[in-house]
Amino acid sequence: MVHRKVAVLVAGSWGTALARVLADNGCSVALWTRNEAQAIEINEHRRNSKYLPGAELPPGIRATTDIAEAVKDAEAALFVAPSAAMRDVAKLVAPHLHKDALVIHATKGFETETLKRMSVVIAEELGRSESCIVALSGPSHAEEVIVRQPTTVVVAAQDLSCAEAAQDLFMNDAYFRVYTNPDLIGVETAGAIKNIIALGAGLSDGLGFGDNAKAALVTRGLAEIARLGAAIGANPLTFAGLAGVGDLIGTCTSKHSRNWRAGSMLAQGLPLSEVLERMGMVVEGVRTTKAGHILAERHGVEMPITSQLYAVLFEGKEPGKAVGALMGRERTHEIEEIASASRTKWLR
Amino acid sequence: MVHRKVAVLVAGSWGTALARVLADNGCSVALWTRNEAQAIEINEHRRNSKYLPGAELPPGIRATTDIAEAVKDAEAALFVAPSAAMRDVAKLVAPHLHKDALVIHATKGFETETLKRMSVVIAEELGRSESCIVALSGPSHAEEVIVRQPTTVVVAAQDLSCAEAAQDLFMNDAYFRVYTNPDLIGVETAGAIKNIIALGAGLSDGLGFGDNAKAALVTRGLAEIARLGAAIGANPLTFAGLAGVGDLIGTCTSKHSRNWRAGSMLAQGLPLSEVLERMGMVVEGVRTTKAGHILAERHGVEMPITSQLYAVLFEGKEPGKAVGALMGRERTHEIEEIASASRTKWLR
Repeated sequence: MVHRKVAVLVAGSWGTALARVLADNGCSVALWTRNEAQAIEINEHRRNSKYLPGAELPPGIRATTDIAEAVKDAEAALFVAPSAAMRDVAKLVAPHLHKDALVIHATKGFETETLKRMSVVIAEELGRSESCIVALSGPSHAEEVIVRQPTTVVVAAQDLSCAEAAQDLFMNDAYFRVYTNPDLIGVETAGAIKNIIALGAGLSDGLGFGDNAKAALVTRGLAEIARLGAAIGANPLTFAGLAGVGDLIGTCTSKHSRNWRAGSMLAQGLPLSEVLERMGMVVEGVRTTKAGHILAERHGVEMPITSQLYAVLFEGKEPGKAVGALMGRERTHEIEEIASASRTKWLR
Repeated sequence: MVHRKVAVLVAGSWGTALARVLADNGCSVALWTRNEAQAIEINEHRRNSKYLPGAELPPGIRATTDIAEAVKDAEAALFVAPSAAMRDVAKLVAPHLHKDALVIHATKGFETETLKRMSVVIAEELGRSESCIVALSGPSHAEEVIVRQPTTVVVAAQDLSCAEAAQDLFMNDAYFRVYTNPDLIGVETAGAIKNIIALGAGLSDGLGFGDNAKAALVTRGLAEIARLGAAIGANPLTFAGLAGVGDLIGTCTSKHSRNWRAGSMLAQGLPLSEVLERMGMVVEGVRTTKAGHILAERHGVEMPITSQLYAVLFEGKEPGKAVGALMGRERTHEIEEIASASRTKWLR
């Protein structure tokens, strides 16, 4: 049996969990990391204890610190670097990647300085068109995927045949279902912005508010994401699907969510720097709040939850006052609230 | 100061919690119950220990077992009977209610035999047009409202001025926000059917599946609710709002949800009769599954989660097989899945 080789960059929790899916599907996975000790731990002890403590990795995964070796002869490359590192990683990969290799990413965020979507950043560095870059998203905690809990995700690409090629790589009958969606912009935007709403949900819970308040917050968060998405060219249907509603539900109500946990720590009055230090891993929602705030202004879209989070994270606003401001907003007609995006076609 | 009198029927957990909101807003509340001991407990000990243990009720609430006394001179009547008792309660109220009294209900379900919405049942028994019957819905656990946790609901009526009158009664600055929505059919349908999805979420959790699986299930549940709603004349926007997404999030992820708890007990292999006995309160989702199943057939709408729940509840299907059947369904294109309701306008 010939194993299909896939390169996965980098070996964080989501990269490692997706590497397991690929290995379970019979691929030979080269998992790239800059960290020598981590590579040794993965190869010799079948563990990635910093990111997925307790999980045993299958033999189909081989870690390496050599980018050329990781990417050489790979039929596909999966980019799962943090958003802030994506451009550098893509730059490193570019000289080694075969021109026909399928390119997929599973990172939820924007490039902070340029506000570009991940697929755009990758396409630029690889010197390719964006049309065949695939984004993988949806409600998918790495901690569950690594132990083969049933999970359903969506893969999006402008060229649907590229999404189908990614579906073919990842889908299995045992625990990993993959849907396709041609709306790359919508899937990437939904995945990124939901981390802001997850921070907000964590704040609400951390301040001692209940499930009623959180459900109302998440509902308004969905409307806010959809307004922005519609303004930048997404298909409104996408926000009702796995990358929108699904990921919001998965993120805002699960103990596994880093963004939720970061929000709940902020509610306890810890400064942002300390929260990030305690988390020890990237909290994408923090950077995305900055990006979302700027995008909202640029496109003239009302994003009250994003605005309040921005004030808490970067302007020292008290979390209680921010949540209070959200709860006291003036609207009274629900359809107006949802359809205030009517200019931008949300749900039309 | 003249107190506005409101009759609340009956004294279950949600009726009692909404009675507190009205009392906090300065209303004089007559809370009707058939149970003499419960009325005495409410009036003398300020408690409703079966339904809301631990909560102290404000003096503005007076319980009575006399329906004529409860309804006499009431400016508004709030119906919160279980769906199966709604017609009988409305029949009892009819001879005593002033013809100008505002009529509101907060019950999530259909009449089992006729599949009529609650507003239709009430209108028929009161001999009124349905246009001014108001439905109150949204993510609102009684256990949180009774302790004044921030909560946001929606009130719907075909005649928006009637919804605004209800908004005026219930809204306060302290903890209870009320939006209006003219889509009565959508709000009632979303509120009823989401209890089926909550049963399914409880089944999934009870079988040991994780947050990824549940988020996927709830996402598909939303699509299913919206398909049915659109087929019977609802506005698609409603399902993106508090009565749709909001209530689904609140119900499927909260320890307070009875439907979720019933689902998780079913997953442990308990027969339906025993689950219902252990719950000790009405589990609306069980009856609604029957109604939803028939409505889906009647309107030719695909409702896979409802079908599987129906098989578990009424045809003895093993819960594990039902959830397995849902996870193994054949679709692969997400937009098709969501837009299979395109004939019925969901999210158009």
